[in-house]
Amino acid sequence: MTQLLDLSLLNTKQSIQDQTDVLVAYVAEAWTALQTQQPLVQCITNSVAANYAANVLLAAGASPAMIDNPFEAESFTRISAALSINLGTPTSEQLQAMQISAQTAQQQNIPWVLDPVGYGPFLKWRSEMVDQLLAFQPTVIRGNASEISTLAGKQIETKGVDSTASSADVYHQAKTLLAQAKVIAISGESDYILSKQLDAVIQVNGGSHLQPKITATGCALGALIAAYSAVTNPVIAALSAHVHFAIAGQLAYARSQSTGSFNVAFMDHIHQMKAETIYEYADIQLIRTSA
Amino acid sequence: MTQLLDLSLLNTKQSIQDQTDVLVAYVAEAWTALQTQQPLVQCITNSVAANYAANVLLAAGASPAMIDNPFEAESFTRISAALSINLGTPTSEQLQAMQISAQTAQQQNIPWVLDPVGYGPFLKWRSEMVDQLLAFQPTVIRGNASEISTLAGKQIETKGVDSTASSADVYHQAKTLLAQAKVIAISGESDYILSKQLDAVIQVNGGSHLQPKITATGCALGALIAAYSAVTNPVIAALSAHVHFAIAGQLAYARSQSTGSFNVAFMDHIHQMKAETIYEYADIQLIRTSA
Amino acid sequence: MTQLLDLSLLNTKQSIQDQTDVLVAYVAEAWTALQTQQPLVQCITNSVAANYAANVLLAAGASPAMIDNPFEAESFTRISAALSINLGTPTSEQLQAMQISAQTAQQQNIPWVLDPVGYGPFLKWRSEMVDQLLAFQPTVIRGNASEISTLAGKQIETKGVDSTASSADVYHQAKTLLAQAKVIAISGESDYILSKQLDAVIQVNGGSHLQPKITATGCALGALIAAYSAVTNPVIAALSAHVHFAIAGQLAYARSQSTGSFNVAFMDHIHQMKAETIYEYADIQLIRTSA
Repeated sequence: MTQLLDLSLLNTKQSIQDQTDVLVAYVAEAWTALQTQQPLVQCITNSVAANYAANVLLAAGASPAMIDNPFEAESFTRISAALSINLGTPTSEQLQAMQISAQTAQQQNIPWVLDPVGYGPFLKWRSEMVDQLLAFQPTVIRGNASEISTLAGKQIETKGVDSTASSADVYHQAKTLLAQAKVIAISGESDYILSKQLDAVIQVNGGSHLQPKITATGCALGALIAAYSAVTNPVIAALSAHVHFAIAGQLAYARSQSTGSFNVAFMDHIHQMKAETIYEYADIQLIRTSA
Repeated sequence: MTQLLDLSLLNTKQSIQDQTDVLVAYVAEAWTALQTQQPLVQCITNSVAANYAANVLLAAGASPAMIDNPFEAESFTRISAALSINLGTPTSEQLQAMQISAQTAQQQNIPWVLDPVGYGPFLKWRSEMVDQLLAFQPTVIRGNASEISTLAGKQIETKGVDSTASSADVYHQAKTLLAQAKVIAISGESDYILSKQLDAVIQVNGGSHLQPKITATGCALGALIAAYSAVTNPVIAALSAHVHFAIAGQLAYARSQSTGSFNVAFMDHIHQMKAETIYEYADIQLIRTSA
Repeated sequence: MTQLLDLSLLNTKQSIQDQTDVLVAYVAEAWTALQTQQPLVQCITNSVAANYAANVLLAAGASPAMIDNPFEAESFTRISAALSINLGTPTSEQLQAMQISAQTAQQQNIPWVLDPVGYGPFLKWRSEMVDQLLAFQPTVIRGNASEISTLAGKQIETKGVDSTASSADVYHQAKTLLAQAKVIAISGESDYILSKQLDAVIQVNGGSHLQPKITATGCALGALIAAYSAVTNPVIAALSAHVHFAIAGQLAYARSQSTGSFNVAFMDHIHQMKAETIYEYADIQLIRTSA
């Protein structure tokens, strides 16, 4: 289906409604492709997210492998369909692996996602590594509003690794990052996806306010973007992962309002996703940004 | 509320019942303060506990960040409201981070909790590190009966990282540790909290015998003490975390008696806690220890 | 009971049915011994499995300790009843710990299980370590069909760390590995257990197709084999762990068909196991392999 995908359709004089319908159809196709292809996704991630992200990828249909040492990074990235790099709790060995795998991915045209967890002035070691990793041209950069805003050069007050900024406030700033990556994805109360291919920003609604109360949901989202980027183009990949999460979060919250049970229900709905569920629940808006 | 807290009240001639009522009120206030302030808590913890402790802190109302590398330890501890150090599965890099963060916490008057997991003769590397960390004067030392007893200089037969001693038997020995920390908290069938500020030991009842069948509950308890110590004084912080856990454990056990479901219910009840729940279920006793 | 166990019984002219009945009785006895003895099991495992494997061991009745640093490896292995080594996401420090602990286990006659996660041409660093660890004569080697087949010298197309081969196809090849270990256990749609003590292969049926959709179930199975090997002989240990998992998987699937809830139910049924459950649900076949 990647060949058939023509995003230029979205830039025509179609009505906004027609265009969001096209996007939802692309998401449903991407989900189907994920089930069929079950791509191998290498994740270099943090100790908090390792188990959770692997379970999310398995539930969503992908095949995760958390290979994060520098000695096997190159050979393993070469056979992977996509790569996810997350800076949550890096070790020295992991940072080496990140550099090797990112470089390999760039050379081999393997899509890769960069999640600059905690990027900012109080976490300089990882932030400098993020700056270096940008040289290997990530396919998608995804983060919360604080991280993306700081990465785009705006000084912002951060609080640990959670966002203190609103995603709606920062997507304008994030445009400058399109010089570094094909797609920028910002998670928050609503999510925003920016791409050079579009003269619009895609807003994804849904989800639940409990998602930020579950640790590593953002990290798992980055890994899921990587999984989708193995089966479709980057902007649809980012969109599909965000829609997948938004629907699962919304349905999970309908089943449970406490974090323990919500988390179980969330994983269930990641796993129970169907093309029809996407058509029924996907809540996407296009925001025109061109002059 | 920290200013209003007057523990000398507890040392007057009030009846024991009045005094435990005061303590429960302090716990309820601390819980409310945790919700309001959502303090940033740095955790240097083990690979088993990382995800679980983060989810417990989020469910309880705090904002966890598992920053455990030596290169960012100082700058991050400086902006944290509290610090939790856990010796479960240390790496060389983590041990360096522990030293830097503990020292920074001491210098900056940031409360910090030391959880000497596995302290004893068969795990000398970490035990020596614990001995060194004591120089930075932890605010609270928390552990199971075996760990606390061994730390207090009593040779005890330990079995891995689980306790073989009874918490009720060791709280007398633990008094000597008050030279090293403001508060000592011992978990077990009942929990015991010792402080220089009190001429009594506080006993916390409740919980469930299934809690020790869930890995990392003790580690998460240490992190929660740190979170509470950001919003109240150390003895009420330790007490609040133990009461929070005891109530959640008791209510979870009423809902499920198998470890998988119990664990989900436990997280739910950590999250569902309210001031009224604390007033209704807190089971605290004061044991006079002065001559 | 270990003294009473006489596997030569299985090699007599008894009917196959009588022999599988004997095996089921041995499994029920092993489960009972696990509850009584609660053996201390050292696990050197990966970041994805650490929490999950510990919870599985606790739910099953054992006492896990994830001691994975080289500085405490020798002293801790000496006091452990069994050792589990898993190559999922190794670090340099963990590889050192693995060598020390495996050597100590061999010298001290402590049973140990080797799980060569991802063994194959794309993950050479760990594969070379596995080759070195074989010198310390693991009691049990357990893996999925791809790993065991590659370890037995057959080049196979692998996909990350998940199996692309069928367990039924590879158990013949696995016989050569009996030169390296007392027991070989292969997990898959059906599981196969080979031992020098038997002139048959034991096939274990049951489980659920959702188990491979939960990350680290294989890793936890390896840890559980180690736990059982502390209380019975190696072939019954491997069999007991596989039967324990197969029954829990089957009963969990009857309760839930989505991965989040299934995972909770699976842990519940690991914990709820009883001797009677084993007698009722164990599904074992003996496949004669002698000429």
